[in-house]
Amino acid sequence: MGASTKGADMPEIAEALSRMEGMLPAVGTERVALDKAAGRVCAESLAARLDAPPFAVAAMDGYALRWADAGAPLRCLGTARAGDPLGGPVSPGTCLRIFTGAPVPPGADTVVVQELAEAAGDRVRILPGAEPHRHIRAAGDNLRTGAPILRPGTRLTARHVGLLAAAGHAEVAVHRRPRVAILSTGNELSERFAVDRGAQILDANRPALKALVQAWGGVPRDLGIVPDEPDALSSALARVLDAGDIDLLVTSGGASVGDFDLVCPTLAALGFAPAFRKVRMRPGKATLFGQFGGLPVLGLPGNAVAALVSALVFLRPALSLLAGTGRAALPEERAILATPLPATGPRTTFLRGRLDRGPAGGAVFAVLADQDNAMLSGLAEADALVLRPADAPPAAAGEPVSIIRFDRAPGF
Amino acid sequence: MGASTKGADMPEIAEALSRMEGMLPAVGTERVALDKAAGRVCAESLAARLDAPPFAVAAMDGYALRWADAGAPLRCLGTARAGDPLGGPVSPGTCLRIFTGAPVPPGADTVVVQELAEAAGDRVRILPGAEPHRHIRAAGDNLRTGAPILRPGTRLTARHVGLLAAAGHAEVAVHRRPRVAILSTGNELSERFAVDRGAQILDANRPALKALVQAWGGVPRDLGIVPDEPDALSSALARVLDAGDIDLLVTSGGASVGDFDLVCPTLAALGFAPAFRKVRMRPGKATLFGQFGGLPVLGLPGNAVAALVSALVFLRPALSLLAGTGRAALPEERAILATPLPATGPRTTFLRGRLDRGPAGGAVFAVLADQDNAMLSGLAEADALVLRPADAPPAAAGEPVSIIRFDRAPGF
Repeated sequence: MGASTKGADMPEIAEALSRMEGMLPAVGTERVALDKAAGRVCAESLAARLDAPPFAVAAMDGYALRWADAGAPLRCLGTARAGDPLGGPVSPGTCLRIFTGAPVPPGADTVVVQELAEAAGDRVRILPGAEPHRHIRAAGDNLRTGAPILRPGTRLTARHVGLLAAAGHAEVAVHRRPRVAILSTGNELSERFAVDRGAQILDANRPALKALVQAWGGVPRDLGIVPDEPDALSSALARVLDAGDIDLLVTSGGASVGDFDLVCPTLAALGFAPAFRKVRMRPGKATLFGQFGGLPVLGLPGNAVAALVSALVFLRPALSLLAGTGRAALPEERAILATPLPATGPRTTFLRGRLDRGPAGGAVFAVLADQDNAMLSGLAEADALVLRPADAPPAAAGEPVSIIRFDRAPGF
Repeated sequence: MGASTKGADMPEIAEALSRMEGMLPAVGTERVALDKAAGRVCAESLAARLDAPPFAVAAMDGYALRWADAGAPLRCLGTARAGDPLGGPVSPGTCLRIFTGAPVPPGADTVVVQELAEAAGDRVRILPGAEPHRHIRAAGDNLRTGAPILRPGTRLTARHVGLLAAAGHAEVAVHRRPRVAILSTGNELSERFAVDRGAQILDANRPALKALVQAWGGVPRDLGIVPDEPDALSSALARVLDAGDIDLLVTSGGASVGDFDLVCPTLAALGFAPAFRKVRMRPGKATLFGQFGGLPVLGLPGNAVAALVSALVFLRPALSLLAGTGRAALPEERAILATPLPATGPRTTFLRGRLDRGPAGGAVFAVLADQDNAMLSGLAEADALVLRPADAPPAAAGEPVSIIRFDRAPGF
């Protein structure tokens, strides 16, 4: 939590993300029943296991007949409705009353809609306007056996679940949910406020990070609060490694370079191979990524706002990489400034604000007055961040800017 | 599943939604631990239970001192770091080495950053450039006891969870998840394809609708497939009512006016009070809504694509109303047509298509060639719908249109 920024290597966000990318291979797979598949990431190429419809079926309510016979009155043999077994053949001079979804019997080559037929007893007359070969959905029209329906890497939604069911799949191979261990560091942190236990703040980072991991498809494991003591941190880290079942460790706090910021040196003692130790962004500079003993670790800042902004930038793509969908891009959009912005310093800068609809219908962004990094209430009130490049000049109201809407990263 | 459109009352989508709105009051509430709160809807007004920070704390690493003494060398009394108990007073002529987050002791009114101080042994000299009253975060600066932090009706995300933790809330009152019973009707439907059991299609609607209910915050209860027989449907509906714990019943199939479409007459026999029996939209005309015995019921079409499009239009806002967040609007956006569109008929029309980035950076929509309503593969391939008004003329490539991106209704 120190303020010093010594050390030469401070990559831009894009460069930091590129370094992270190669170090987060997709996790293994498991088979799940269709009921459990929504939200998971497909891990196989799938094809239809059957023809849909399995037989030719009527696409409308009407009469099934041979078109060659349509000129003269037809004798109606009976009724076929959806779900009935395939009926006997329609012989010359006959027809079948048929309802949408019912199997078209052998012999029939046309369904005439009921509006274009006149029935009296078992006699049916086809009216002018009827057309040959209409209103029959052929076997396999919607899905043909062997036709590809899903690619690996697809995040499954309700539409895919419906398609899998229709195609005869009762289960599907998916990537298991990435397991993410979360720990907070800091002597000042507490789960429960008690004045007699020293000057404390309640730990907001772990609850928020657990919620993010869950919303973004992972399974959080809560490692609690570790005090700012090398031995305590070292044994906490060693325990994660020994457990052997964690895909990513996320820490918050202690990742800066102050006298009591222990994450970097403690990791170093465990053989840490860093991808980066800080990032040219604000807030969120004190973000690190690397691995030790084969375990990827993402170190987030201690300040709550900085931790969450950095999670949006790094934890979200880390989880999507582990889950097998590739790197989730930061969801940048354009908006018009409702309020002026100051010049930015030497880092890419995120400022919290609120979105509204402008007079022209487009999105309009108003920056919040208080941008204090410990101010979680401001982040909760905001619904977007403006993303400003390093060394940007002041921006006036009316200028277009790049924003990140929180509802584009659901769960944030 | 009949094709006839008799009956005068066929409201537009907006009118149908308005009629639905008053019939879906928010469900009851429960208290959940913070770990279970993300994704739930807050059901109370909440205020901060404590000041954050609880004491004045250092906002930077440096030295805490009385500004009046800054002109002469100071004796350093010791070190305070985050989490340390509140130290004794800083008396005249003394200072305290202090780190970010540590309590500022009584007497000190300024923190001078370490870059503007020179220490030799326990002597500290303040350098030019230091300013009075800086770098102290006063008690309650971030959150003041009693300050409002959350309103009822807020869908809680990770940011809110963090704020609740920081404000001293270990649990929160939320609406319970709406319980949604789902049944499919149709003799042709099966869970498992078997040629000897009549002409069947696999039921894709229930699996997809269950996934939607879950993605949109509800708890699905699967009532299975009911054949097209009045007695079977009637007793299935009566059982839902008797169970007494369902907030919404969703049916699919049998909601049209064909000879074997039984949902409307069977509901009528149970005292159905309809809000609407069909809607001026395509696909999805055969959508009904109302209540019987106090139970809201949404009847969706049997065709898979029609059922899912209608679910996007009606089930999503139904769930958000039950959940207490108010009516979720259909997420309409603008895009440019990449392909021409035909004139529409007398109903609001949804066509499936794919989105791409145009040369100017905006969204470009290309309609899919096959718009068959039983074609779930086409819906799964699509990533948006174009929404065209009734009786719209043909539209040329390059024209702006209204679209609904599926990723704006996550889970669809």
